[in-house]
Amino acid sequence: MNDRYQISIIGLGYVGLSLSISFSKYYKTVGYDIDKLRISELKKSIDQNREVKIENHLKNILFTNKPGDISSSNVFIITVPTPVTKNKNPDLKPLLKATKLIARYIKSKSIVIYESTVYPGVTNDVCIPILEKISGLKCINNSNRNSNYGFHCGYSPERINPGISKYKLKNITKIISANDTKGKKIIRLLYKKIVNKVYLVDSIEIAESAKVIENIQRDVNIALMNELLPIFKKLNIDFNKILKAANTKWNFINFKPGLVGGHCISVDPYYLKFIADKIGQNSTLISSARNINNNFVNYYNNNLKKDIYKNLKNYKSKILFCGFAYKPNCPDTRNTLVYPLYKKIKKSFPNVDIYDPLVSVKDVNKEYNIKLKTKLRNRYYDCIYIIVKHKIFNKDSLKEYIKKETNIYYLQNI
Amino acid sequence: MNDRYQISIIGLGYVGLSLSISFSKYYKTVGYDIDKLRISELKKSIDQNREVKIENHLKNILFTNKPGDISSSNVFIITVPTPVTKNKNPDLKPLLKATKLIARYIKSKSIVIYESTVYPGVTNDVCIPILEKISGLKCINNSNRNSNYGFHCGYSPERINPGISKYKLKNITKIISANDTKGKKIIRLLYKKIVNKVYLVDSIEIAESAKVIENIQRDVNIALMNELLPIFKKLNIDFNKILKAANTKWNFINFKPGLVGGHCISVDPYYLKFIADKIGQNSTLISSARNINNNFVNYYNNNLKKDIYKNLKNYKSKILFCGFAYKPNCPDTRNTLVYPLYKKIKKSFPNVDIYDPLVSVKDVNKEYNIKLKTKLRNRYYDCIYIIVKHKIFNKDSLKEYIKKETNIYYLQNI
Repeated sequence: MNDRYQISIIGLGYVGLSLSISFSKYYKTVGYDIDKLRISELKKSIDQNREVKIENHLKNILFTNKPGDISSSNVFIITVPTPVTKNKNPDLKPLLKATKLIARYIKSKSIVIYESTVYPGVTNDVCIPILEKISGLKCINNSNRNSNYGFHCGYSPERINPGISKYKLKNITKIISANDTKGKKIIRLLYKKIVNKVYLVDSIEIAESAKVIENIQRDVNIALMNELLPIFKKLNIDFNKILKAANTKWNFINFKPGLVGGHCISVDPYYLKFIADKIGQNSTLISSARNINNNFVNYYNNNLKKDIYKNLKNYKSKILFCGFAYKPNCPDTRNTLVYPLYKKIKKSFPNVDIYDPLVSVKDVNKEYNIKLKTKLRNRYYDCIYIIVKHKIFNKDSLKEYIKKETNIYYLQNI
Repeated sequence: MNDRYQISIIGLGYVGLSLSISFSKYYKTVGYDIDKLRISELKKSIDQNREVKIENHLKNILFTNKPGDISSSNVFIITVPTPVTKNKNPDLKPLLKATKLIARYIKSKSIVIYESTVYPGVTNDVCIPILEKISGLKCINNSNRNSNYGFHCGYSPERINPGISKYKLKNITKIISANDTKGKKIIRLLYKKIVNKVYLVDSIEIAESAKVIENIQRDVNIALMNELLPIFKKLNIDFNKILKAANTKWNFINFKPGLVGGHCISVDPYYLKFIADKIGQNSTLISSARNINNNFVNYYNNNLKKDIYKNLKNYKSKILFCGFAYKPNCPDTRNTLVYPLYKKIKKSFPNVDIYDPLVSVKDVNKEYNIKLKTKLRNRYYDCIYIIVKHKIFNKDSLKEYIKKETNIYYLQNI
């Protein structure tokens, strides 16, 4: 256990929790979150996100929602969400709140690291002025580095892909940036303990930009698939077969159509659009991709309605939707497009239930005002649609709940 | 030499020539083109496209512009260009002309194969009716296959990437489709002689669609880069460094901003847009990508003008543009965006010359009404811009033509 650094992680979502556990093997670590329930669960080694096994790690971590507990740290890592507002503008409230919190505790030579996805400029132009004002300290950069009274600040974007077990914190290359050389050295040293590979960049803005364009690229590519699918559907040409054929070209990139929800891909493009608008630059393609992906719910809605009616010929049929998370094998329901799909379908078919044992039924009720089924009745449903392809859902695992076994469908196949 | 099949290739661009030479090792082959000059050059083993070495192959090929020479063939492969009109609509004239030509010569059990890129439906809905009407024969499909009087028809999209030596006809997977099983078998057998890998698909429309979406995907991805570059330029963040950092993520796809010209990527999206419009489906993203890539000339124009003036402070400076082809290491100038860039720059700087020893000076003069330089004067230019990164262009190979050696720039670096 190294005593030189004591680390506080602010925000214990899947990113903050992974970092806390990894760092706690080497440093005294405090995991802070404002969510009391989350803290009490983590103390009992329960992770609602099912990303990390907490047992055996608890001895070096203090999970807490008391601000004072971070006071003895000299490294502060901010991993709070950066969502969008109803109008799809960056909602920096959690980030600013976390910034104001740590500003009260940073000391000379403290190290502040942001991991939350932002638009380029947020760290230096929005966060650091707040840190400086409240702490009375200066952020060290290569021009003022001889000053004794300052804190180091860096940005290292999180890249964890929840639900995908192949890429975890340890084997994802970590981009590292800071405003001064010494700060960058220390941040590099810290992360080198917990990840296999770090990649140093010249400025915080480069690191901020790299992260945001990664997700934009995915969003645009999925949007293209979501634009193509309805064209080929109308032309009556099997899009899956087209994709398989195209994939035999060496440089074709394997993307598939689908619902784009969640807190990353469906959000980050709005961050770049915000700053592009502000400086008067076009972001037509990025915006167009976002619209296509948001509206893709309508495509599924139309086809699902036709499909249900074709199969059952009855608007009063009992239908079960399996899956409410924003993506397969993940308990996260933020910006899930199953919600708007369900609302639309329900207008035509009033007897739709939703079942997703991966997600928190309580949270969904609070956030979306929907009561998910927790127990299913045997031979009750006329048809079942697997909306989100969790591994736990398949024709075998669901057959006891349906009247006629053949009536289990995958949304993606309709 | 197998006598069962005699092959005529209609259209001797880089695709048709590659096919002719490959097939001629196994079958008697006729290479037909309407361009007299091309034929006379090919007979002398000259390939203006610099894609294929012709010597040693000539003995089994007849290069010809006489329609009658294809009459003894029983396999007809169409590899003519499918460009767009001024209004960006599919220009099927060359394809229809070739179709009408072979329609006069097909016999019972002849095999017709289209390789030209089209929108889905062209082969079956546009070409085959013409073939049937003129020949008086029926196209064989799996319902009428017992008829003795018919021809087989298939579609196998060309995927050759000119200028890239790593992927040539032989090692590019060839998609194969046909309207009847026997036809598909024969077409498979023919191509298996000349390529390593074939991939059979269920219908001609799947093959047509696969080809067109491959190029659309590239167009959209480059468009995204072309939308991002000006944003980060204005934010004063080095886009190359951002891309390098983003590329350290396992699933980031390595695309770069640049001018998109040529007869494939800059054309094919309009084909799909045409059919999407016709059936009332949106193609917003595809169209938006096309617009961004076409307008990217303006970005380079603005930055180039600023750069030239910053470097030389004189509107009368003598400037040399190196490269006129639509992409590096390729002699093709179809839809090259160097043309509109040159026209725009010339308005501010009248003394711009263009030099590109890879392209045909005569063709450029005819097509674009521009006289390319064929000989450069020593120490004549005030600055040189490498617009197209042909391998032959570098600071060393160009230094004798410039007054001051430091004034050689790459367009992409400004």
